[in-house]
Amino acid sequence: MADGGDPTLRQLGEFPVIDRLVAGRRQPAAVTVGPGDDAAVVAMPDGRVVVSTDMLVEGRHFRLDWSSPLQVGRKAIAQNAADIESMGARVTAFVVAFGAPPDTPAARAQELADGMWLEAGPLGAGIVGGDLVASPQWVVSVTAFGELSGRPPVLRSGARPGSVVAVSGELGRSAAGYLLWHKGIDDFSELRQRHLVPRPPYGQGIVAAQAGAQAMTDVSDGLLADLGHIARDSGVLIDLAADALRPDVDAVTAAAAAADADPRELVLSGGEDHALVACFPAAVPPGWRVIGTVRDGGPGVLVDGLRWSGAAGWQSFD
Amino acid sequence: MADGGDPTLRQLGEFPVIDRLVAGRRQPAAVTVGPGDDAAVVAMPDGRVVVSTDMLVEGRHFRLDWSSPLQVGRKAIAQNAADIESMGARVTAFVVAFGAPPDTPAARAQELADGMWLEAGPLGAGIVGGDLVASPQWVVSVTAFGELSGRPPVLRSGARPGSVVAVSGELGRSAAGYLLWHKGIDDFSELRQRHLVPRPPYGQGIVAAQAGAQAMTDVSDGLLADLGHIARDSGVLIDLAADALRPDVDAVTAAAAAADADPRELVLSGGEDHALVACFPAAVPPGWRVIGTVRDGGPGVLVDGLRWSGAAGWQSFD
Repeated sequence: MADGGDPTLRQLGEFPVIDRLVAGRRQPAAVTVGPGDDAAVVAMPDGRVVVSTDMLVEGRHFRLDWSSPLQVGRKAIAQNAADIESMGARVTAFVVAFGAPPDTPAARAQELADGMWLEAGPLGAGIVGGDLVASPQWVVSVTAFGELSGRPPVLRSGARPGSVVAVSGELGRSAAGYLLWHKGIDDFSELRQRHLVPRPPYGQGIVAAQAGAQAMTDVSDGLLADLGHIARDSGVLIDLAADALRPDVDAVTAAAAAADADPRELVLSGGEDHALVACFPAAVPPGWRVIGTVRDGGPGVLVDGLRWSGAAGWQSFD
Repeated sequence: MADGGDPTLRQLGEFPVIDRLVAGRRQPAAVTVGPGDDAAVVAMPDGRVVVSTDMLVEGRHFRLDWSSPLQVGRKAIAQNAADIESMGARVTAFVVAFGAPPDTPAARAQELADGMWLEAGPLGAGIVGGDLVASPQWVVSVTAFGELSGRPPVLRSGARPGSVVAVSGELGRSAAGYLLWHKGIDDFSELRQRHLVPRPPYGQGIVAAQAGAQAMTDVSDGLLADLGHIARDSGVLIDLAADALRPDVDAVTAAAAAADADPRELVLSGGEDHALVACFPAAVPPGWRVIGTVRDGGPGVLVDGLRWSGAAGWQSFD
């Protein structure tokens, strides 16, 4: 796989590869000890750490014939950052464990790391440590750390009847992009790109927390499925207004038609866009759009008062 | 792979499996938000978090025909805990990402989690979150968190000429055990067990830090290789006394003879025992044994003033 000018991971060896991956990276001030020791040390002035982890497996969560390593790196960081955002926290650091076949060109590992820094840097966060191992296929496991700055975390369990449900970010785009890739449709490049690199509404998690959000999550498994977690954990019924989802439905309608899919299904059940959805007791802050209400009953999620009959999102072992 | 009474991960689905994995676990008081939300929240009263991550891949880091899932779980926690110990910190929490084929019996995932809790519980630490995904083979990615309680971290870079080098824990056992497994030798069950579940000297990292350790690491790649990191990062020469390593050599001599190996090589270059090695300016605390001295020069690691000619430890992509 590699010619003379492009050494593989095996040819370079673990530590020289790691040296290349960390060289020249600019760590945030909060990172007291960065890569190169047994562990990293990151300031958490709040006295608490918010932590989340996600694993991406080649062939399951990404395909290297669809995504560049740079895009895989961006996606891995983005989806973990969204989990931290959805607690109302600011992401400060990541650690990354990366498994790849020994004949992987080292330049491709470098590109993966570049993508991670490209996504993490603007958030003010660093990749502070990691592990590099041999694996039959690429496996990227990211753990993200966040800081609450004295605020309580926004859990899934706080939604109360009478509140409104609002969204920040995009719905249905990643699922539309997936279908386009899957069916080999070359149009709609922006949607296909969005499947490879989601665009979470960075910063809106804190905005929501400061605006009094009662409950929040990111849309990783699909709007109905993820709101279902809030409904269950809060013991409430969530009723979405189909009209309020119209902008997202419109954005994927042409692509859905080309791919012979229902655009509403993409918006209601498509995951991996990592929009944030939250419940607010009153007005929603700028950057958020009301899409439904919280009611007594349930737990469950309805659309215009009715149970949606499509697939209810995506589960890991389906 | 599974009969009617033993459902697979696919049959149960991601969330029901996770529900089973977390049911009934007792989280430490420091865990404000445990599994079940987008992220966990763990108290870090020190205002800093110590963090390390390791990935274990089936066929590379463990074999399911040698190890039970319980043993894999214990090993994954132990090796990450050792990284936190080697910073002079106390481990407080772990997150775990687990990939496995969908036809894996759910009971085996449960056994993996049981092993993790068996190892983490006595440390006062909890498994506070995770991810469960489909993967062609088992992949276990653990991130560990530690608390320094106001102390500075003990880095690899602090060793100074005139200090002594000391070890806490075992050397050579895991490598001996590996050889026994590899060659199909059924004797020496304790050494074979030790390869599957290392026994880090829990608590000795803090003991060393409180006793003034200048530099510390755990032996994951081999004594010479890991001390080589301290020598390089500190800019010193480390000279080990072969006599001082005699107890470890003796402990693996019979097994080495049976496996046609050099017991000194097992002790000097065998990794994965996760002993702690540290440099102290003066006396070493109880539980530690002097094995060498720190000198001007190098950087490098000698044995009785000579360069050891065996393999210099284990690298991920060898």
